[in-house]
Amino acid sequence: MSKVVEAEKNGSLYLDDLRVGQRFTSGSHALSADRIKAFAAEFDPQPFHLDEVLASQSVFKGLAASGWHTAAITMRLLVDGGMPIGDGIVGVGGEIAWPRPTRPGDVLRVETEIMEIAPSRTRPDRGIVTIRCETRNHKDDIVQTLLAKVVVPRRTVPANDSIERAL
Amino acid sequence: MSKVVEAEKNGSLYLDDLRVGQRFTSGSHALSADRIKAFAAEFDPQPFHLDEVLASQSVFKGLAASGWHTAAITMRLLVDGGMPIGDGIVGVGGEIAWPRPTRPGDVLRVETEIMEIAPSRTRPDRGIVTIRCETRNHKDDIVQTLLAKVVVPRRTVPANDSIERAL
Repeated sequence: MSKVVEAEKNGSLYLDDLRVGQRFTSGSHALSADRIKAFAAEFDPQPFHLDEVLASQSVFKGLAASGWHTAAITMRLLVDGGMPIGDGIVGVGGEIAWPRPTRPGDVLRVETEIMEIAPSRTRPDRGIVTIRCETRNHKDDIVQTLLAKVVVPRRTVPANDSIERAL
Repeated sequence: MSKVVEAEKNGSLYLDDLRVGQRFTSGSHALSADRIKAFAAEFDPQPFHLDEVLASQSVFKGLAASGWHTAAITMRLLVDGGMPIGDGIVGVGGEIAWPRPTRPGDVLRVETEIMEIAPSRTRPDRGIVTIRCETRNHKDDIVQTLLAKVVVPRRTVPANDSIERAL
């Protein structure tokens, strides 16, 4: 097994292991009407996220999850192995879009692709990696796209590894 | 009281009531370490969002809220009067950034400005409004910026209002 494949399995990829075009797939997350309503009650208490009847009369034509709920589930799927970065996923920001509502019964997964790798100009121990994350439901519809910039550390090079490289 | 001021107080502004440069301020939301950890346990279970000691050794140098928690609180503040749109706040997407971590004890508020108003080309009953939302803590530091596109319906013009306008 190559070092990179091994590191990916252990959830410990570093800047040096990443390549533009590399892809990752998360596990899955099933969403219920109860969870949609509970998230909305706390963070986005609007009728179309809280009540089936009112939602059916709204622009959503049925109960829909808050976009921020879809975003939060996407993060959970990335943390649970969808984006196996060594020191954790630290985002500085990104562009988000919800082309389609997330519905009760949807089973979500996240497909991630490395779009750009930019070593830091001021901090040689890290870089900024742009990832594109598509959150899809079980019908393969895209419910969210997220183009995110994340901070990724370089792997610390062990002493004898440096010696080997110098040879 | 002007019609627009009255509509703003009732949380019922429509496309016709909005002007570029118009500004709104939300109420406030105090964030505790317990809430930061509870959100993280569900949606972003990484050490720097869950444990003070591990967080102090991380890039955050102390417990920090998940960016998606800050985003969700921002939405709650907008829904609770920070962005008083008549038929609810329906976002199609946007650009988000977290220039600084949100910490336990932070009291957050959202300052919103209307940046652009684009009537829909295909649906005459609505438009897309670009809003810039700055989420600030009690020290006035910006912890999140969000440039969001939201769908805003036109006000239905009552019959005698039309007559007055025609005169």
